[in-house]
Amino acid sequence: MRILILGGDGYLGWPTSMHFARAGHEVHAVDDYLRRRAHQEAGTDSLTPIGPSLPARANAFRDVTGLEIGVTEGDLTDWSLVERVFREFEPEAIVHYGEMPSAPYSMIDREHAVFTQTNNVVNTLNVLYAMAELAPDAHLVKLGTMGEYGTPDIDIEEGYLHVEHKGRSDTLPFPKLPGSMYHLSKVHDSHNIHFACRIWGLRATDLNQGVVYGIETEETRLDERLLTRFDYDEVFGTALNRFCLQAVIGHPLTPYGRGGQTRGYLNILDTIQCVQLAVLNPAAAGEFRVFNQFTEQFSVVELAELVRKAGAEVGIEVRIDHLDNPRIEAEDHYYNAVHTKLLDLGLQPHLLSETLIESMFETIRRYEDRVIPDHIMPATRWRGVRERSPG
Amino acid sequence: MRILILGGDGYLGWPTSMHFARAGHEVHAVDDYLRRRAHQEAGTDSLTPIGPSLPARANAFRDVTGLEIGVTEGDLTDWSLVERVFREFEPEAIVHYGEMPSAPYSMIDREHAVFTQTNNVVNTLNVLYAMAELAPDAHLVKLGTMGEYGTPDIDIEEGYLHVEHKGRSDTLPFPKLPGSMYHLSKVHDSHNIHFACRIWGLRATDLNQGVVYGIETEETRLDERLLTRFDYDEVFGTALNRFCLQAVIGHPLTPYGRGGQTRGYLNILDTIQCVQLAVLNPAAAGEFRVFNQFTEQFSVVELAELVRKAGAEVGIEVRIDHLDNPRIEAEDHYYNAVHTKLLDLGLQPHLLSETLIESMFETIRRYEDRVIPDHIMPATRWRGVRERSPG
Repeated sequence: MRILILGGDGYLGWPTSMHFARAGHEVHAVDDYLRRRAHQEAGTDSLTPIGPSLPARANAFRDVTGLEIGVTEGDLTDWSLVERVFREFEPEAIVHYGEMPSAPYSMIDREHAVFTQTNNVVNTLNVLYAMAELAPDAHLVKLGTMGEYGTPDIDIEEGYLHVEHKGRSDTLPFPKLPGSMYHLSKVHDSHNIHFACRIWGLRATDLNQGVVYGIETEETRLDERLLTRFDYDEVFGTALNRFCLQAVIGHPLTPYGRGGQTRGYLNILDTIQCVQLAVLNPAAAGEFRVFNQFTEQFSVVELAELVRKAGAEVGIEVRIDHLDNPRIEAEDHYYNAVHTKLLDLGLQPHLLSETLIESMFETIRRYEDRVIPDHIMPATRWRGVRERSPG
Repeated sequence: MRILILGGDGYLGWPTSMHFARAGHEVHAVDDYLRRRAHQEAGTDSLTPIGPSLPARANAFRDVTGLEIGVTEGDLTDWSLVERVFREFEPEAIVHYGEMPSAPYSMIDREHAVFTQTNNVVNTLNVLYAMAELAPDAHLVKLGTMGEYGTPDIDIEEGYLHVEHKGRSDTLPFPKLPGSMYHLSKVHDSHNIHFACRIWGLRATDLNQGVVYGIETEETRLDERLLTRFDYDEVFGTALNRFCLQAVIGHPLTPYGRGGQTRGYLNILDTIQCVQLAVLNPAAAGEFRVFNQFTEQFSVVELAELVRKAGAEVGIEVRIDHLDNPRIEAEDHYYNAVHTKLLDLGLQPHLLSETLIESMFETIRRYEDRVIPDHIMPATRWRGVRERSPG
């Protein structure tokens, strides 16, 4: 199958590109290095030493496997680029990771909020128009986020909610309570994609993904030049990955507030598996399908405790320091999200274990000298703007 | 009260500005003439001859009433302008009409879709950040649209839905099924505003307005220089206004498809009354309040029949020609939208009557020589992109 990977230089995009290429598909990856630039601006970096560019990574991949990954360096907000890639590559599936992915980044200030929303919304509108005009039977597999739902006081369903109301009933988009300007951009995307499916008959799957952890995939293990990035800074790092790094370098783990925030989590191996299942089982024409993509729920303190226990096993003493929560979010709440559709398609979850955490410790230790500790603690506060106000 | 009117040059913005000024408030109007420029590009125009600019209109208003309306000509996507207006005027209420308002405009092609969404989303983000930083206790009264809801098969509530689900319950944002790239932009705004209320404690009222009809308000009647615009073209015209004009010039009325599309409608006098009620009864700090702003529901054929009957009364023979529907929308559907919150605040509806339609005929006849008939028939098709596709 011809598979276009948007955001193919990212934490997930690069391993996904390699995985599809090794599975025998024709892969073309597009990236504009948004995240690399954001790291440069902030003085942060991936823990793992990743290849200097997407072409360099594709060359290394060819050296190691003999397989090709096509590459375009460019910005998805540029219609002429999107149009050219669609005309030349004629994708049958589009895996769309190509967005600014960070909640804290979007909350830095007005400029970052406006940038995140316009970048993500325009990227996705361009993809939808390119599909309608040039690839109307292709299947869009779009990376959404479980953060679109927030923490409602009812069970979270997969994209839709059957409502009985005043003697009538309907199945409607699940109501959204996103928690940052970034999460909002994904809600906007979901509404735009749903509309494009309704009016143009496009096929789309929205993968509302939980928090991904892990550092290695089958392909990254083949050669050090094929590593994927691993972020641990306050802007791009995520809970478990950051806790593992903190444990290794002797930094206290930093749950925000009481740490009762419960979310869905999954191993990076399962991200790749889920995306593959979605691509190989496309949505019907006109269908906007939503999968909740995670395998287990944890609260932040549960994760911290797991890391502490795994640390004790290998002789690392782990301290836990609860921080003032820089975000505005419920710290004790109901959370139960349905996630059966990907299991029904055959997902075989890699559940979180101490062994996995210990192997992450090992990989992190290999690159410990690359850690920049200045940017581990949170600096971006959700209430920031209001705190600076004269009112 | 110091009331900032964003989009103060528009069909609703200009009469609203005059009304608040005459009611004794301090009014400042901002506009960048987006709609005037879109008309110039398309070769269309307002039926009514409106003043050449916002300063010219404010001068005329001062001549007639002795009252001031402050004016800023500028673009709300320009943060430096928004910041300056907020710093200098220090608004206590912000009435936000300042968006690209047309569904067909947003559906012309990709560029118009991207423009509509980025313009509207960035305008509103800028207003939210200006409020958080510079006017945290001000009240945002934002023009939304009933079109955010679409036509679900259950009753439409005012912004929120109480859900009982698997033995638990919550009150959540009402699910949205918007029908154009423009309506989507308003859904994006609603999510963004709701978030700003939750995290910064801002006050906001989202007015999900139905289709407005009417040509005159108390203030526009004072002097011809104070007229508001009246659009009847396929891009900016709306159902009843356009039908009245078609009747007067002997053009067949043009319901789309079977004409069973049911929507909420209201008189322009009631728009002004509703906005005033919202401004004078502000939302609480942190509250995102949603009012459904219309007074009556009609199907498109019901409106066409009403216009035909009113025509017969005054000796105009009105023909009705059902057109192939250029939009993608249900033509027969359930529709029952709650709209009690503004009535509870004291709204006194001006219901639609043959007398009102006949008085619209008279006003339209006065400017009949200004009609540009070329742009009455729809040219923008929702399926357009897909029709041009090679697939």
